[in-house]
Amino acid sequence: MAGTMGTGGGATRIAVLAGGVGAARFLRGLVAARPRAQITVIGNTADDLDVWGLHVSPDLDSVAYHLAGLADLERGWGLAGESWAALDAMARLGGPVWFQLGDRDLATHCWRTERLRRGLPLSTVTAELAGRLRLPVALVPMSDQRVTTRIVTRDGRDLHVQEYFVRERCEPAIARLHYAGIERARPAPGVIGAIEAADAVLLAPSNPLMSLGPILALVGVREAVRASGQVVAVTPIVAGAAIKGPAVAMLEAAGWEATAVGVAAGYQDCVNHFVLDDRDAALATRVAALGIQPWITDTLMVDGGAAQRLAEIACSAAGV
Amino acid sequence: MAGTMGTGGGATRIAVLAGGVGAARFLRGLVAARPRAQITVIGNTADDLDVWGLHVSPDLDSVAYHLAGLADLERGWGLAGESWAALDAMARLGGPVWFQLGDRDLATHCWRTERLRRGLPLSTVTAELAGRLRLPVALVPMSDQRVTTRIVTRDGRDLHVQEYFVRERCEPAIARLHYAGIERARPAPGVIGAIEAADAVLLAPSNPLMSLGPILALVGVREAVRASGQVVAVTPIVAGAAIKGPAVAMLEAAGWEATAVGVAAGYQDCVNHFVLDDRDAALATRVAALGIQPWITDTLMVDGGAAQRLAEIACSAAGV
Repeated sequence: MAGTMGTGGGATRIAVLAGGVGAARFLRGLVAARPRAQITVIGNTADDLDVWGLHVSPDLDSVAYHLAGLADLERGWGLAGESWAALDAMARLGGPVWFQLGDRDLATHCWRTERLRRGLPLSTVTAELAGRLRLPVALVPMSDQRVTTRIVTRDGRDLHVQEYFVRERCEPAIARLHYAGIERARPAPGVIGAIEAADAVLLAPSNPLMSLGPILALVGVREAVRASGQVVAVTPIVAGAAIKGPAVAMLEAAGWEATAVGVAAGYQDCVNHFVLDDRDAALATRVAALGIQPWITDTLMVDGGAAQRLAEIACSAAGV
Repeated sequence: MAGTMGTGGGATRIAVLAGGVGAARFLRGLVAARPRAQITVIGNTADDLDVWGLHVSPDLDSVAYHLAGLADLERGWGLAGESWAALDAMARLGGPVWFQLGDRDLATHCWRTERLRRGLPLSTVTAELAGRLRLPVALVPMSDQRVTTRIVTRDGRDLHVQEYFVRERCEPAIARLHYAGIERARPAPGVIGAIEAADAVLLAPSNPLMSLGPILALVGVREAVRASGQVVAVTPIVAGAAIKGPAVAMLEAAGWEATAVGVAAGYQDCVNHFVLDDRDAALATRVAALGIQPWITDTLMVDGGAAQRLAEIACSAAGV
């Protein structure tokens, strides 16, 4: 815990717990809103998967591609100007094509996998990737060990979260979810330090169970966030619906209220501020009743300006 | 050694020792010339290499792509309609791009590498690939163990043959070449059997040192070819020049005469027939003096018809 507003000697330090596309958009806004801050992004890796023998890190790549200015903003995922020739060829070979890898994206996965097979930890490889893409932030995976969010369906299957999300299009009814490997995993080098050194910790508008849950479940992370004292979460739920993805079904399966209040309650022990959407203004008193300061704004990041305004509110809430 | 002309009970069986593009073109002609023959292609893997962490088998893929009707016949290598988005993206990451992998081609390498990492031998993976591409031949890699043709340059470097060939564009002066790993390698399952069962063994018009040399250097292969008794080689050298690639420089470095006669002499112990180009008709008496029956024809495979005519001559020479 830095304990100051960061206006003293060095630059303001901000740590962000981040999932995929929602976090990536928010981070673009944050970099625009606080261009001189030292930002460390702690990225979810519990939806990492092996595709075609390659290690794919969907959330790290969403963040990296957005911050490098390479993301396809219209499609909402992947790289701008992407092509799909390799996917077509893989289909011809009868290989798996349910998880779509674009041609340009493939270079990232080959590059990463080759280094991981040489024995380099994911944190080292990710730092090098961030450098090569000239990201304006430090990008740290939550762990160098494999943790996987898995969805147990009511019909008894135990699916990788990407199988549930992409291959099964969120259709199976969820019985529960769990983070396989979480007991053996440790936060990657730099994760705890970035949280402890931060003037503010921001929880990006990401799925609280699928994206931020695994990060917070790593030994020591939740305690470090709690101890940091200036913690702001941005709601991923607006008017009872996820901005993107299967958050509502997951929250319900986990027994959480599937509203912004439910998310705030899930973070109650470690968050001081919670940014609600205008449409949920009526929920502010219930957030306040949790001992969390509510902030109300338009949270829909329809463009870069909207993302910057949202990040501005989150920073203001944290006093940075 | 089958000992008959294969016109008895089953189909004629032909085994072909094959390098890359020259062999691939010849094989298309052979399939057209002998559509009912059972053809086994024994492919060179001594120019296999790792690119981006992927196992690339240039010669096996040249053969497979040509026989699947997918090859780019104009460029002379790779797949028709190929694109290069992944290569561009890899360049942006600062990764190695001297060995160009196309987007469609990448699917093959990912598919193969994933299976090899699961512990399947290359021969099994290659057979499955041949099946998925519906090749009209059996395709067998020369070995499941890694053998690598390496070029020792006069300035003392020890280069992978693809580094010499592609990255260095055949420019360094060659001191010698060697087949690293040849002592420990064994012919892949099916190699010796295909040669022993063949009514004819054909040596495709491939580089005798870089492509067919490693196959013949595997323990037992040269002896099996010699014992088969109906062996036809097609010259890769016309009028003292290689049709494609660095054969002449390699032959000279190895102390061979850099002509069709030099190639025939290199095969003297195991070949009965040698197909010379019209332009080298004057060399026929020298080939005959080696105890090898010369056949003279136009060996330049300028199109499919020319390749079929060349294959027809080779088959006729072998009596199949």
